[in-house]
Amino acid sequence: MKHLTHMEDLGVAGLQQVIRQALSWKQADPGKHLADALLGMLFFNPSLRTRASFEAVMARGGGSSLVLESGKGAWAMEHRDGIPMDGDRPEHVREAAPVLSRYVDLLAVRSFAALEDDAQDEADPMMRAFRAHATVPLISMESAREHLCQGLADVLTLAERFGGPDGDLKGQPVTLSWAPHRKPLPKAVPNSFLLSAAAAGCEVRLAHPPGFELPAAVMQQADDLAAQSGGSVYVSHDQSAAVAGSRAVYAKAWGPVLPCAGDAPAMMQAHPDWQVDSRLMAKAAGDACFMHCLPVRRDLEVAAELLDSPASAVVDQAENRFHVQRVLVDMALKSFKQTSNQSWSVA
Amino acid sequence: MKHLTHMEDLGVAGLQQVIRQALSWKQADPGKHLADALLGMLFFNPSLRTRASFEAVMARGGGSSLVLESGKGAWAMEHRDGIPMDGDRPEHVREAAPVLSRYVDLLAVRSFAALEDDAQDEADPMMRAFRAHATVPLISMESAREHLCQGLADVLTLAERFGGPDGDLKGQPVTLSWAPHRKPLPKAVPNSFLLSAAAAGCEVRLAHPPGFELPAAVMQQADDLAAQSGGSVYVSHDQSAAVAGSRAVYAKAWGPVLPCAGDAPAMMQAHPDWQVDSRLMAKAAGDACFMHCLPVRRDLEVAAELLDSPASAVVDQAENRFHVQRVLVDMALKSFKQTSNQSWSVA
Amino acid sequence: MKHLTHMEDLGVAGLQQVIRQALSWKQADPGKHLADALLGMLFFNPSLRTRASFEAVMARGGGSSLVLESGKGAWAMEHRDGIPMDGDRPEHVREAAPVLSRYVDLLAVRSFAALEDDAQDEADPMMRAFRAHATVPLISMESAREHLCQGLADVLTLAERFGGPDGDLKGQPVTLSWAPHRKPLPKAVPNSFLLSAAAAGCEVRLAHPPGFELPAAVMQQADDLAAQSGGSVYVSHDQSAAVAGSRAVYAKAWGPVLPCAGDAPAMMQAHPDWQVDSRLMAKAAGDACFMHCLPVRRDLEVAAELLDSPASAVVDQAENRFHVQRVLVDMALKSFKQTSNQSWSVA
Repeated sequence: MKHLTHMEDLGVAGLQQVIRQALSWKQADPGKHLADALLGMLFFNPSLRTRASFEAVMARGGGSSLVLESGKGAWAMEHRDGIPMDGDRPEHVREAAPVLSRYVDLLAVRSFAALEDDAQDEADPMMRAFRAHATVPLISMESAREHLCQGLADVLTLAERFGGPDGDLKGQPVTLSWAPHRKPLPKAVPNSFLLSAAAAGCEVRLAHPPGFELPAAVMQQADDLAAQSGGSVYVSHDQSAAVAGSRAVYAKAWGPVLPCAGDAPAMMQAHPDWQVDSRLMAKAAGDACFMHCLPVRRDLEVAAELLDSPASAVVDQAENRFHVQRVLVDMALKSFKQTSNQSWSVA
Repeated sequence: MKHLTHMEDLGVAGLQQVIRQALSWKQADPGKHLADALLGMLFFNPSLRTRASFEAVMARGGGSSLVLESGKGAWAMEHRDGIPMDGDRPEHVREAAPVLSRYVDLLAVRSFAALEDDAQDEADPMMRAFRAHATVPLISMESAREHLCQGLADVLTLAERFGGPDGDLKGQPVTLSWAPHRKPLPKAVPNSFLLSAAAAGCEVRLAHPPGFELPAAVMQQADDLAAQSGGSVYVSHDQSAAVAGSRAVYAKAWGPVLPCAGDAPAMMQAHPDWQVDSRLMAKAAGDACFMHCLPVRRDLEVAAELLDSPASAVVDQAENRFHVQRVLVDMALKSFKQTSNQSWSVA
Repeated sequence: MKHLTHMEDLGVAGLQQVIRQALSWKQADPGKHLADALLGMLFFNPSLRTRASFEAVMARGGGSSLVLESGKGAWAMEHRDGIPMDGDRPEHVREAAPVLSRYVDLLAVRSFAALEDDAQDEADPMMRAFRAHATVPLISMESAREHLCQGLADVLTLAERFGGPDGDLKGQPVTLSWAPHRKPLPKAVPNSFLLSAAAAGCEVRLAHPPGFELPAAVMQQADDLAAQSGGSVYVSHDQSAAVAGSRAVYAKAWGPVLPCAGDAPAMMQAHPDWQVDSRLMAKAAGDACFMHCLPVRRDLEVAAELLDSPASAVVDQAENRFHVQRVLVDMALKSFKQTSNQSWSVA
């Protein structure tokens, strides 16, 4: 079984494979490479790009998809073991995951961070429960710990702009900068950009105010990936210094270290000067691009004028979600066929 | 017009036909038997298995489906005649059913019991309104009175495990046991298991505490079906006695007889000893399976250890929803073509 | 780029083209004319007919569709420029429209009137924002100002019943009558019936109580279209006089002129005698049909007996949504291919 939910499932070699295949398929469309395949998508949280791009992947590839929303159209879902189910979640992952696996060829799940405790989110309980109980390949559409597809799309965007042959990004300086917001947000996107840029060999510069550290286990994993890829990871509290000479400036709001003694929304609004704008971009390389995973708060995280400028890569990043995802779906289906006698799951 | 919403639409012969066809197609996949067919699904209540399995039926069969949710994405809907529509339901079934019939080849509707009065739920007003006003075949995805697809999937599950040639289940003892819950639930699933197991010729043993009787009309219908099929129906207030020697133990929570003088949630919690567990299963036949329609409350309706044991058939039951439903869809479309000059409804 | 969101995008000639093509395709099905095309639908408001009929258009034509609901499954969306995004709408049309344009071949958006100020609704800010920022063709599924698809379906319904060769409706008297309701409703449907019937050459008779005038700019546009088509537009406060001899009576509730000094819900209920019924229909032509866009409030806007009578064309109107929409989708895709080197947007 080949689940594709965390960077650990790909590693440096797997990331390179995804990027090369995506670049290749952007040149030569793979056609109906997903003919007759059925993807089941389960959302615990809202989505615009993720839902639309995965549905497009399946439709363009000749397959199809179905979408369930837990707690709305579908039942609210429990993932914890060993507790009596007398609360407001009538369905357990222990049934839902194997049942859905009987209907579809692969599953995709989105489940955001609970934002109570970094250690709990780092353990990624809902996504890990689906990994444990799904009997077809599982793809993450963002979990508490990581947003794998976004990290891959970000690296593809960098590779198209600054990459050498095969999209090689070794030694390219890129900055991931914390940004202000009205409320704490999950750390999955910064975690995944950090991990995937490190795995791609970039010189990753992480900049944030004190108190907004990313989880130590993620930082350690990024260091390990950089050591394998020839990349490097630096952390700074000085936004301008981090941006100096960077080829890319990635703005992203995320919450403080959790649990948090202070008023987390107030902490998110205590650094308005960290809003990314053209003045900051002027310190980056002349051809530097501005990046964000979207949705983005204009004139809060980022100056509107920067988003509307030619330096912005945000729409390309979003488009690249499609391109990396069709590779992931293809890889997951092929790996599953190799380890299975089933033509499809129900048969 | 061939609507498939209640056991009365199939009878003993129709049930046999569905089970045989489903068994046959599990051996030899029918391929694109639903090419170009379009199913319209309308939900008044949540769904995981039903929605996913019907979408899978259409996608696997080469057709497609669309999903509407009344009161959420789609308008809230009125089914009562003769009242001015000055409330919070802007759409009437008298328009919605014929209009949707112009867009799709068949309709599927889910509308749960109101849980105020058994007689009202037994009359199944919303499903009957769609039957009256749809101009393409209608399939029930669970109504106030019955959950036809679930009952058929349950019999298919029994037939695979204990059936003779052609899945014959004549005389097989199976027990349907009431189970505790935090609140009253509809009677559609127990009604349908009772009716379909009786129609399949089983020796059906119904066990529940006093006050949880199923509707008299359903009991009578089950007796009539058993008389035709060679089956039988027994009712008991002694769970252990009912289970003794059974090939299957089907646990299901349902509410008290309605309207109910007492505190219905309290009544649902007054018999915790009716939780089904391995100790109870030990009284059944050695090869007995545990059944539940899902979603199931672990350690409330059923002991978690039983759900996670090899005796549990719940995931197979859910998979079999797919298999019986593709037969129903196929039957409905074929019967409609025979009685219609239309290639499809809009043309 | 060929957006199809307002009558101004079609004009008299464009409307004729749509009606003729729709009539032709009702005789000879166009088959898989939309093969491999992917439609992205974004709803800010509920829908039954619109969603189902567009999904049917794509499925019948061999293409596919995906559905997003802003503020429910997808993020709430901002369309205003120049304001900091510190409220409850995390996504901006400036990103959403170009991003979705990368995934699909054409976009369709529904965004109802805000019902605070007719001038603001007339300016149609959300739909105009999508027009400005989408990079694939955009189709309106109803906006603050117009419901283009409904207006076209209404004219198609008239053309089938009363049209000459090619569906010619020149000089045919049709009445659009205001109807009572429990609350103010948008003016998009009456606006679009007025505009499309005028563009089709009808003698359009608009009847409403004082205070329920349609926007002056829409009235002027209707006059201009009538001048081009050979039609005419009359306004009356006398419902009976307006209906006399009409071939069609279109009932529709809409709100008072906004902003409104009085109690708008009370105003909507102050003219119960404007409910359309068989007594009123008796003043129309002998073969006159009753029309409504649905959903309709029985025995509030319209007498139930009229809706259930053979004079009612409401189900045909709804079916004709399918027929005009497949023409619009086809036109939009063809016009885009002519002006683009793209085989599809992401490639």
